[in-house]
Amino acid sequence: MTEAAPVSRFGHVDLDDMPEDLRARIGAVAEKSGFVPNVFRALARRPAELRAFLDYHDALMNSDDGLSRAERELVVVATSGANHCTYCVVAHGAILRVRTKDPEIADRVATNPWGVELSERERAIVDLALIVATDSAALTEADLDAARDAGLTDEEIWDVGAITALFAMSNRLAHLTALRPNPEFFLMGRLPRG
Amino acid sequence: MTEAAPVSRFGHVDLDDMPEDLRARIGAVAEKSGFVPNVFRALARRPAELRAFLDYHDALMNSDDGLSRAERELVVVATSGANHCTYCVVAHGAILRVRTKDPEIADRVATNPWGVELSERERAIVDLALIVATDSAALTEADLDAARDAGLTDEEIWDVGAITALFAMSNRLAHLTALRPNPEFFLMGRLPRG
Amino acid sequence: MTEAAPVSRFGHVDLDDMPEDLRARIGAVAEKSGFVPNVFRALARRPAELRAFLDYHDALMNSDDGLSRAERELVVVATSGANHCTYCVVAHGAILRVRTKDPEIADRVATNPWGVELSERERAIVDLALIVATDSAALTEADLDAARDAGLTDEEIWDVGAITALFAMSNRLAHLTALRPNPEFFLMGRLPRG
Amino acid sequence: MTEAAPVSRFGHVDLDDMPEDLRARIGAVAEKSGFVPNVFRALARRPAELRAFLDYHDALMNSDDGLSRAERELVVVATSGANHCTYCVVAHGAILRVRTKDPEIADRVATNPWGVELSERERAIVDLALIVATDSAALTEADLDAARDAGLTDEEIWDVGAITALFAMSNRLAHLTALRPNPEFFLMGRLPRG
Amino acid sequence: MTEAAPVSRFGHVDLDDMPEDLRARIGAVAEKSGFVPNVFRALARRPAELRAFLDYHDALMNSDDGLSRAERELVVVATSGANHCTYCVVAHGAILRVRTKDPEIADRVATNPWGVELSERERAIVDLALIVATDSAALTEADLDAARDAGLTDEEIWDVGAITALFAMSNRLAHLTALRPNPEFFLMGRLPRG
Amino acid sequence: MTEAAPVSRFGHVDLDDMPEDLRARIGAVAEKSGFVPNVFRALARRPAELRAFLDYHDALMNSDDGLSRAERELVVVATSGANHCTYCVVAHGAILRVRTKDPEIADRVATNPWGVELSERERAIVDLALIVATDSAALTEADLDAARDAGLTDEEIWDVGAITALFAMSNRLAHLTALRPNPEFFLMGRLPRG
Repeated sequence: MTEAAPVSRFGHVDLDDMPEDLRARIGAVAEKSGFVPNVFRALARRPAELRAFLDYHDALMNSDDGLSRAERELVVVATSGANHCTYCVVAHGAILRVRTKDPEIADRVATNPWGVELSERERAIVDLALIVATDSAALTEADLDAARDAGLTDEEIWDVGAITALFAMSNRLAHLTALRPNPEFFLMGRLPRG
Repeated sequence: MTEAAPVSRFGHVDLDDMPEDLRARIGAVAEKSGFVPNVFRALARRPAELRAFLDYHDALMNSDDGLSRAERELVVVATSGANHCTYCVVAHGAILRVRTKDPEIADRVATNPWGVELSERERAIVDLALIVATDSAALTEADLDAARDAGLTDEEIWDVGAITALFAMSNRLAHLTALRPNPEFFLMGRLPRG
Repeated sequence: MTEAAPVSRFGHVDLDDMPEDLRARIGAVAEKSGFVPNVFRALARRPAELRAFLDYHDALMNSDDGLSRAERELVVVATSGANHCTYCVVAHGAILRVRTKDPEIADRVATNPWGVELSERERAIVDLALIVATDSAALTEADLDAARDAGLTDEEIWDVGAITALFAMSNRLAHLTALRPNPEFFLMGRLPRG
Repeated sequence: MTEAAPVSRFGHVDLDDMPEDLRARIGAVAEKSGFVPNVFRALARRPAELRAFLDYHDALMNSDDGLSRAERELVVVATSGANHCTYCVVAHGAILRVRTKDPEIADRVATNPWGVELSERERAIVDLALIVATDSAALTEADLDAARDAGLTDEEIWDVGAITALFAMSNRLAHLTALRPNPEFFLMGRLPRG
Repeated sequence: MTEAAPVSRFGHVDLDDMPEDLRARIGAVAEKSGFVPNVFRALARRPAELRAFLDYHDALMNSDDGLSRAERELVVVATSGANHCTYCVVAHGAILRVRTKDPEIADRVATNPWGVELSERERAIVDLALIVATDSAALTEADLDAARDAGLTDEEIWDVGAITALFAMSNRLAHLTALRPNPEFFLMGRLPRG
Repeated sequence: MTEAAPVSRFGHVDLDDMPEDLRARIGAVAEKSGFVPNVFRALARRPAELRAFLDYHDALMNSDDGLSRAERELVVVATSGANHCTYCVVAHGAILRVRTKDPEIADRVATNPWGVELSERERAIVDLALIVATDSAALTEADLDAARDAGLTDEEIWDVGAITALFAMSNRLAHLTALRPNPEFFLMGRLPRG
């Protein structure tokens, strides 16, 4: 069944109508979260693009090597806030709350990533991400050195930059398609687990 | 052998040192162009990310369905110019010259995508791409209607938006890695074929 | 008792330590909401300024004459989102959810006030508010005429502009003081009333 | 009598038609300056808002505790210049000339508040004010520390920030109402007192 | 004799120390205005550049062919205001007051060239000038057509654009040299002629 | 003979139709380069302005005193890139390639003047030029001191600033006239001399 509000301005593909590999892959995500995130239903209009999107996403986001998963979501929420992307702020804000068990962090980071109070390491991560997100042509070795001074390795710096770059794409796809967050995301991680 | 100027600030992987599937895939590109484009050597540091990058790129750029290949390169050069991305302007500018057989178009589009004289259809493509590249939060149905008025279908609008989004990522990766264009790109397509 | 995280970078005044008139006035608000909103505790450092702030706020926000109360909060959330003001987005986002009984509206308006889907009247209200918030020197009679075309009266236009102006001040006071939203605001209006 | 050019795009209220308390209060100002400043005649359309405006203004501007009155006007002229607010630049520029007995300072500060040559203390005041006026979300403790290094106390920092915030509101009200400076302001303080 | 405040950060050349042709030419200006405008004393450090500057200035500003002299000064004051150039706003503001016999026009145009109320022809002149001054890469035939619709000929459009371009240079030279307006300019044209 | 694509939106004057002094002067340039640069044919519509333009240009660009000629062209290409001026990027990019014998430098500087790798002295030159080009009101003594720290003399600083100012004008004239680069410029300096 499809809800009243449209998933995107270009329609969507329900899970059952996706090619088998995508149905299996996204079905697994849906089973875990309890619903099919709208980004997959909107992008399924173009299966080859969706497959590449999923591969890129998983390569960068499903790892605790270097940056923790919570730090990776921090990058997504900060840069999606700076880019004013509602889908990514709401969906990844939910994941950030779940990962950090902090019900306030997502709203605070997304609304003002420049000013939000963070640890020194988190501040260095967000500062670097914001430059790559909003003014990457001006990125200099001095910006990388600032990240290194806060203890980030070059692998971690790559992660921060590459995740920011991936969501520069993702934010624009969400704006292109007028993508709507699933209603479930808005409340996720806001209530103490019983 | 590696040339004097570094490929990227994070080093690079030579073709022979890449995993077999990437060696085959990028080797095929290199055979056609006569050299290994630096973007592949820089991103090969992360094979899983490079595979997804190649898949995404091929899904959007290797098609003449709807937008022509030249129009797809036009989107890349215009938005990479707006984003001040030297690698993408130089490398895709070369491809745009080759595809259009116009030795001036790339420099004119990349330097001033807002003002360059274009056909009505090309202007609509570039106008839409520039909004998605630089101010996607403000994209409205009216912008899409302007593209439709110039004759673009919804599939073509998706292509324009998705290519712009892909190079929003690609431009940022190039800035993150201080990626240097191969010397061969600078001259490609500037001389009449003998 | 005072919670661990500081209310503001300049400290705060507890309700019991405020001058009697402010204690009564803010006590009445606190009784209704169940807690003392931090903005009052932070601004109470300067009682005369807080009194004027409360008077201005009440004159513009506690009225259903012309703009509805929900529309007034819409102006606050949209412009505080554009100004990246965490306190005002979180606190007035909560009030907007309560007034509209819509658990999604605040996050959607605050994250992307330019692109969020709204009714024609709401869009005209938000468009006018965004000009006044971010580029008021460029406001022309044509912008007012656009609002009039959507049915706004001059009294309503004044309300939109004056509320935006009041929160241009309020957002800056929150940034000046590094004001923290009360924890209660984050969840308010997100759950269906039992 | 009313002059030819309109006071504001929403008309105005003459002193004699104001509620008694406002007539007394603004009459006292008018007696001192020799005319009724247009801001009061324009805002008198909404007496409750005007009362709060006057209270806020007097609480912040009529004091020599910490910041001198001239320094308070310096904040107003610098930020109103950055905001391109003609009424506030012309009216408060006049007051700044009177307070400093310097016939050039207002034009120099209003036209280029970033570059104007000032004493170290004045420069710190104006630098802080400009951040709060134009990019308050990015304000950090480092900006406050820079002000402290120039000798400003926290009370003085509050004054700078709060005056800037008040005129963020005031500038927007002037733009909303297309408020015209009284002709008298343009010349005030430009001629040596006889 | 030289006044206390420096003419520019690179010093200046007094009239008597200039090469003979410049002494004659600038002496004639000084005789008319009663003082040597500081711009000439600062630029005289480089006689060849000053000669070209004077020639360019005279070719564009000393003509009533097409644009009136007052309209030419309007372009200078509007764009120098947008560029925050104190010397040009103060000096050419004085000339604009003298030419228009309007003691208010310069302050109103310089402080907010976007919003100042003007005649339809003046508004078209200033609108075109502001695009050329602040975003000339985006200038399109549509902007020229708007000027033509308001009655401007192509010669007049050239004048508006070329004067704006000349003062784009002049404003930057003033900022480079920290050029100070002569005290005489501040009051000129503000008092009714006796 | 005139090529198909128009030289400028306001037409042009062929060399033979220019006043004698301009014909001689520009003829000498044309003899050296093998063609008449379009800027001269477009500006010849106004001989007096063109004469001043040539004088200013020659005073600043035809010198090796202090800044080398290659460094002067570096300033032009960097700031014309920041200003998105196609004519100046293409024409002066050609001259920069010829002067430096580096076929890549112009594309790299013009596309991303902020990030391009340069020597310390060149970086100081370009940094100063970019401030004067894009935000000259904010130029402070600290910016000049940074240039001095990199070894620039005050004469060289003047050159950098004045060349930037001249091309602030020139870029705007090119945009005003929709000036087209001569086809010859695109390839010049890209091929090794035989």
